[in-house]
Parts: sequence; structure tokens; C-alpha cells
Amino acid sequence: MRHAVILAGGSGTRLWPASRRRRPKQFLDLTGDGSLLAAALRRAAGAVDGTVVVVTAADQAPLVAEHAAAAGVTVDVLAEPVARNTAAAMGLAVVHLLHRDPDAVLGALPADQHVGDEAAMARAIERAFAAAERGAMVNGVRRDLICTIGLTPTRPDTGFGYLELGADADLGVPGVRDVARFVEKPDLATAEAYLAGGRHLWNGGMFFVRARRLADELARQLPATWAGLDRIAAALDGDAAAVATTTAEAYAALPSISIDHGVMEGAAGVVTVPADVGWSDVGSWAALAELRGADAAGNVTAGQVVTCDASGNLAVTDPDRVIALVGVHDLVVVQAGDAILVVPRDRAQDVRLAVEALGRAGLDRYL
Amino acid sequence: MRHAVILAGGSGTRLWPASRRRRPKQFLDLTGDGSLLAAALRRAAGAVDGTVVVVTAADQAPLVAEHAAAAGVTVDVLAEPVARNTAAAMGLAVVHLLHRDPDAVLGALPADQHVGDEAAMARAIERAFAAAERGAMVNGVRRDLICTIGLTPTRPDTGFGYLELGADADLGVPGVRDVARFVEKPDLATAEAYLAGGRHLWNGGMFFVRARRLADELARQLPATWAGLDRIAAALDGDAAAVATTTAEAYAALPSISIDHGVMEGAAGVVTVPADVGWSDVGSWAALAELRGADAAGNVTAGQVVTCDASGNLAVTDPDRVIALVGVHDLVVVQAGDAILVVPRDRAQDVRLAVEALGRAGLDRYL
Repeated sequence: MRHAVILAGGSGTRLWPASRRRRPKQFLDLTGDGSLLAAALRRAAGAVDGTVVVVTAADQAPLVAEHAAAAGVTVDVLAEPVARNTAAAMGLAVVHLLHRDPDAVLGALPADQHVGDEAAMARAIERAFAAAERGAMVNGVRRDLICTIGLTPTRPDTGFGYLELGADADLGVPGVRDVARFVEKPDLATAEAYLAGGRHLWNGGMFFVRARRLADELARQLPATWAGLDRIAAALDGDAAAVATTTAEAYAALPSISIDHGVMEGAAGVVTVPADVGWSDVGSWAALAELRGADAAGNVTAGQVVTCDASGNLAVTDPDRVIALVGVHDLVVVQAGDAILVVPRDRAQDVRLAVEALGRAGLDRYL
Repeated sequence: MRHAVILAGGSGTRLWPASRRRRPKQFLDLTGDGSLLAAALRRAAGAVDGTVVVVTAADQAPLVAEHAAAAGVTVDVLAEPVARNTAAAMGLAVVHLLHRDPDAVLGALPADQHVGDEAAMARAIERAFAAAERGAMVNGVRRDLICTIGLTPTRPDTGFGYLELGADADLGVPGVRDVARFVEKPDLATAEAYLAGGRHLWNGGMFFVRARRLADELARQLPATWAGLDRIAAALDGDAAAVATTTAEAYAALPSISIDHGVMEGAAGVVTVPADVGWSDVGSWAALAELRGADAAGNVTAGQVVTCDASGNLAVTDPDRVIALVGVHDLVVVQAGDAILVVPRDRAQDVRLAVEALGRAGLDRYL
């Protein structure tokens, strides 16, 4: 069966003050259509006939359950005892899925991304699952594949890894291409060349693979990680208390490494479904501004905002609050809860400076 | 006896969002030392041996009582049934004072100004009371004077009226000068000439006069106003209900005119005590910024504010809130209650544009 695995353990600060340590980006309603997580859960639930597994930090499990309820999606929440990066989190999902479905095919879907064209994304996911299930025939032997979704770049972004396209994968699934290689975050000149060349796609962290194949890759490439996960797998036949105890002990001992670095970049037989789906990782307030419509003066607003002789601003405020912008241009002004951020739109990434300054000032309670 | 009259009926919006319709500027703690009204009440109470009368809108009477309690000052609150500008409000105080003290000398002191040097202001008030009590001998006859306090200008401000200095008044009270004339708000070139010439002082609305003399001026210059006030005066011997009924009826019929235009500009025998007392009407956020110390980068802050690569800003926030400024310069950023204002510091006067826009947008509840 097809299952989805959603890693929802992030704690990003790039959308501070809306995102906080205890309320990362995926829990925010940034577009007025519900949270990014709720959208991800609906996207996942529509694509699978198996389960939707969400791996998250223990203290965020209640929030996940709340957003799943809002989305009308039944989820299986796996709580990480401690944070050990994405290879461990994905591995935890793999051993749970294999325990209940030895033939599981999983789709890894991020919790905190925006998709503008859900129909196109649904088509891409459908093809990626099909590619992962079908595999490739190599010398008369079926070989399992890892199928990613490669996102059409719309700007020379230096914040993403890229997939370099190879030949048509010839699987009998339309559009699937070999991945020649993974490329680390490029410099600007390289990113511009990628954009112009048309042979590079953004790696958005989505991939589809038989759970058994992913377990084999973990065992081959990250043996220490797999040893710990195997202890957890062995405990799954026991009672809940034993599972919890073993998971807590074994998980804490896992190395902290990402699934991209630890597994994907070293795997053979990786293909991709190129997808032009209006994708955004909503990685900054400036990125959010691009997702929402602007008024005639180029102001993008969420909540009650009045503007006077002001243009090009992004202003976001909670309900029952108001922001008045007079004579200012190209600013980001965000009020969320007890905090306010003001930063030029072209320096939106520098919200991290504010986060660091709050820490230095002993104002961690606002993070 | 000496009495103080404080008109606290304003509803300024120039310090929105801190000031609101129901919480005008005088009720704000702008410097961390208590409200402007509390400071005015303490200033007044220290200067008089009679009463401190506060004339205010009926719906603000409880707030006035609260700030008087905070200041530790006993006040006599006169509630205006409706707003009829300052000539009517001052006249109401005059009839009440004359009823209980036919020899009353009153000092009119604003409710919403900041004084940097209270000792110098106390000295000026003392001399102004003395000048009003002493009067001038003209051809062997004692003539009552109206003594203003003229504030040393520190910039070519076009938002104030000015007093043009005449000769030494020769009253036996140090420093008192004749006022040659009142000048309306000048244009910038004129204001610059005034500043350079040293013969013009700001009219801050403070004056000292025998109540009887002020009643005579009202009767002479504003006979319709005085007729109404006289009806109220005649009722003051009756019971409280009769006073309230007569006041409500007569006051509503009074013309709406300011004491400056209606009385002061047409009065003879006006003198002034020049005073250099660190005075400010706190008429804009920019003016407030000048009252508070700046950090090394020129940022003036009140409340919890962190700044990163930001300079020349004024940031004001409520307790238990935080503002983060990143990479912005010379802005005013104010959070007060449910509203936020962002405006360049050199356009701080344009807060009125925000106030107007809120009204047009049907967001009056934030005003």
C-alpha cells in the first residue's frame, strides 16, 4: 500500500514572530486557507491508500493532532523522544511502516511548504508513487527506484539544493527522468546558469520509495543509525511500554544526520518527476509576500491594515488588531501575538538577527 | 487665594495609537514618570493655596479622578455637559471659583504638556501669579493684568502662536515683560526670523488672572457666552440637581470659541513671564523622541525593543510586548493596545492620515 510520511519536527525562526519555537512554520495559516501542515495532510491523505504517518517532536504532538482534526485527516503520530535530524525521523517511520505492511511504499512529503497548483502536485505524486512501485528492469532484474519530485525553479535561488536531470527513465510512467546528480546549494552565478539551462530542478525534499529499499539504504549507508532503528523494530511486537522504553533509549543514541546527506546523495537509481506546481517553501516573509495578492500600490496585507502613501510593503497582523502604515515603502511589518518585527523586504532573511538579538537580551520567551 | 484651572477636555489623535478618543494624550505616561495630567496636577497643586479645578468631558471624569489619585492631588472636577471649546470651559471654572472665592486669582495650566525643568517652571508660575495679583498702577489706579508664561522657542515651529515681547512691565516682579501682541501661527520664514530675533516666545496657553477680571473680559468680548455662564452662576446657590439642570441647558447653548481667540487676543494689559523650562507640547511622536534619551545609534525606545543595524528610530511598545527593528532607519514604530503605527520620523505629523484612513475603512473602533 501507499503510505505518506510527513516530518513535522522543524523549529524554524525565519518567519518570526509568527513562527516560534513551540509553533513552527507548518502550524501557521499563512495564506488564509488553513495551516501549511493541514494542507500537507490533505495532500498526503488524498494520495495514499495506507496511512499518513507524522513524525514530530513529543511536545508538538498535540498541535499536530489539532491540525489533523482541522484538516479532517486521520494520522498516525510518531513522537521523537529527542531531535535527531531527518534520517533518524524517516527511519523511525520506516520501521513502523514495515512492521505493519512489509510491502509498504512511502512518500515523504514536507509539512511546511506551499503548493499553488494542487492538481498538478497530485499528478506528480501519483506518478512518483507509480515510479517507486514499478522500479526499473536492469539486465532482466527489477530494481527498486527512489523517485523524487523536482520543482521547476522560478528564480536563481541559492537557498536550495538542485537535481541535475539525466535521460528519460523509460519506466512507462510519463515524464520520469533519471537524476544525474544532486547538487549542493549553489552560488548565485551557478544558480543563474541552472535557471537559464533548464536542466536543474529544485530539490524540495519529496521522495517516494519502497520502505524495504529505504531500510536497505539506511543499513548500507548509515549502519549506526540502522542498528538503533533495528532495536526499535525488534521491540514493536512487544507491549506499548516496551516500545516506548526501547524507542527512547535507542533513538537518543542515533547519529544526527539529514536524510539528504545520509541517504539520498549516496543512493543509486534515483529518478525524478519534474513538476511545475507553484511551489514555495515560504522560507522568508519576502517569499510569503509573493504568494499573496498585492493591492494597486504593491502592498500585501493579511489582517486589518490601512496604508497611506505607502507601497510595496508586507503587513501581517492578528485578528482584532490593526496596523497603520504611513509613508513607508518596501517594509515587512509583522505583528504576531506579543511581538512585532519591522525589516526592509529585501532584508527579510535578516529576521535571524532579531532572533539572535532577542536571545542575547534575555528575551528568549519571545522566541 | 490662588487657584489652578486645568482644561483636560482634549481628544488629540496626534499620538495615535497611544492616544485614543477615550484616552487623550494627557492620560498617557510618555516619559515613564506618570501621565502628563498627573504631572500637571502636581505642578498646579504645588503652586496654589486654593483649589485645583479640572474641567473635562463627562465621560473622562473617572479617568481624571484616577490620575488625580495617582498624583496624590485633591481636585475639583467640573464636567462639561458637551464640548464648547476653551472659552466656555474656562468660563465655567470662573463662575464656580467666584462663587466660593470672590477674590480668586486663577492660573490656567494645560493638562498635556511636558516640562523638563520643574523648578524653573515653578518659579515662572510663582512670578506670574504675583504679577496677576499685583497688577499695574496706571495714572494712580490699580489695573488688573493678565500674565502669560512665554516659552523660549528652541526651533522655528510653525505649529504654535507666538507672543511678541514689549518693554519691561515694571511691576516689581522680576522678569515680567509687556506683551506687544499675540501672533498667529507663522509661516516657516517668519518663525525662523522670530527664533533669530529673540523677541518672540511660544504661547503655551498658560495665563494667570483675577477671576473677576476674566469674567469682565468674557462679559465684554463674548457677551453671549457670559449670558449663559451668568445663568449657571445664578443657579449655584441652589441644590445640586438645579445646578446640574441649569448647567446642562445653559452650557449647550454657549458658542464654541477658544479662550485665545475669544478673550486673550482682544484683552489689554497682558504681560508675560519669559520662561526657559524645557517645555514641550508633545505634539507628535517626533516631539516625544526628543524628550527621551537615545542609544548610541540614535534609537529612542520605550518598552522592550531590540535593534539590529537600525538607527534613528523611535520605538514604543506596551509592557510584555517586544518590537524588533532590523535594518530600518528614522522610523516611528508604536504599538499601543490593539494597534500599530509605522511612519517615517520626519512625517510623524501624518499620523492624522492614518486616523482618517481608519475612519474611512470603518475601523473607528481603533480610534
